[in-house]
Amino acid sequence: MAIEHALPGQIIDVRPLANSLSKGRTTALFKSIDLEVLRLVLLVGNTLPPHKVPGEITLQCIEGALEVTVEGTIHVLRAGQLLYLAGNALHSVTALEDASALVTIALKR
Amino acid sequence: MAIEHALPGQIIDVRPLANSLSKGRTTALFKSIDLEVLRLVLLVGNTLPPHKVPGEITLQCIEGALEVTVEGTIHVLRAGQLLYLAGNALHSVTALEDASALVTIALKR
Repeated sequence: MAIEHALPGQIIDVRPLANSLSKGRTTALFKSIDLEVLRLVLLVGNTLPPHKVPGEITLQCIEGALEVTVEGTIHVLRAGQLLYLAGNALHSVTALEDASALVTIALKR
Repeated sequence: MAIEHALPGQIIDVRPLANSLSKGRTTALFKSIDLEVLRLVLLVGNTLPPHKVPGEITLQCIEGALEVTVEGTIHVLRAGQLLYLAGNALHSVTALEDASALVTIALKR
């Protein structure tokens, strides 16, 4: 299913996927001038390998649990918790449980 | 109570304030190089008058309901909903119910 990116002022649903989480997938919500926002879906045991982006990031766990390793330090992020990463911080993410998270990236231009 | 701003990698609690919402107040969570994040607390009937900032904003309702007027268009934002505003968009916010929201601002430097 192709998802259209949201426009300014358009309401975006960021509630837990709950029963449909196991069939969910990572979805770009919008990418604009200053910000990009996506919902990351990561099922238990799956990993985003180490990567980095130039701008700062917030990572907000919506449901489940994620292990976030930032420059070698491990953080566990559960539903209702947020952390932010400095620009160019090398990070990887592993799902400890099926999880979804809102990822907000500051775009550098 | 003075709240220290969070540092990169520090876990920030963004769960609903729930029973303590009526005694809550707007709190800066962090302000860094590219991003500023705060929890807005607005009790029923209260309004943030029209204002704008240079960078894009996301506004994510955590609990309650907010009426967000953006350049003259009214949006109602409920728990689990997010919208983003273009940079320099004139907006005001009124609480339809006691509400808290996560506000992420792209900083322009």
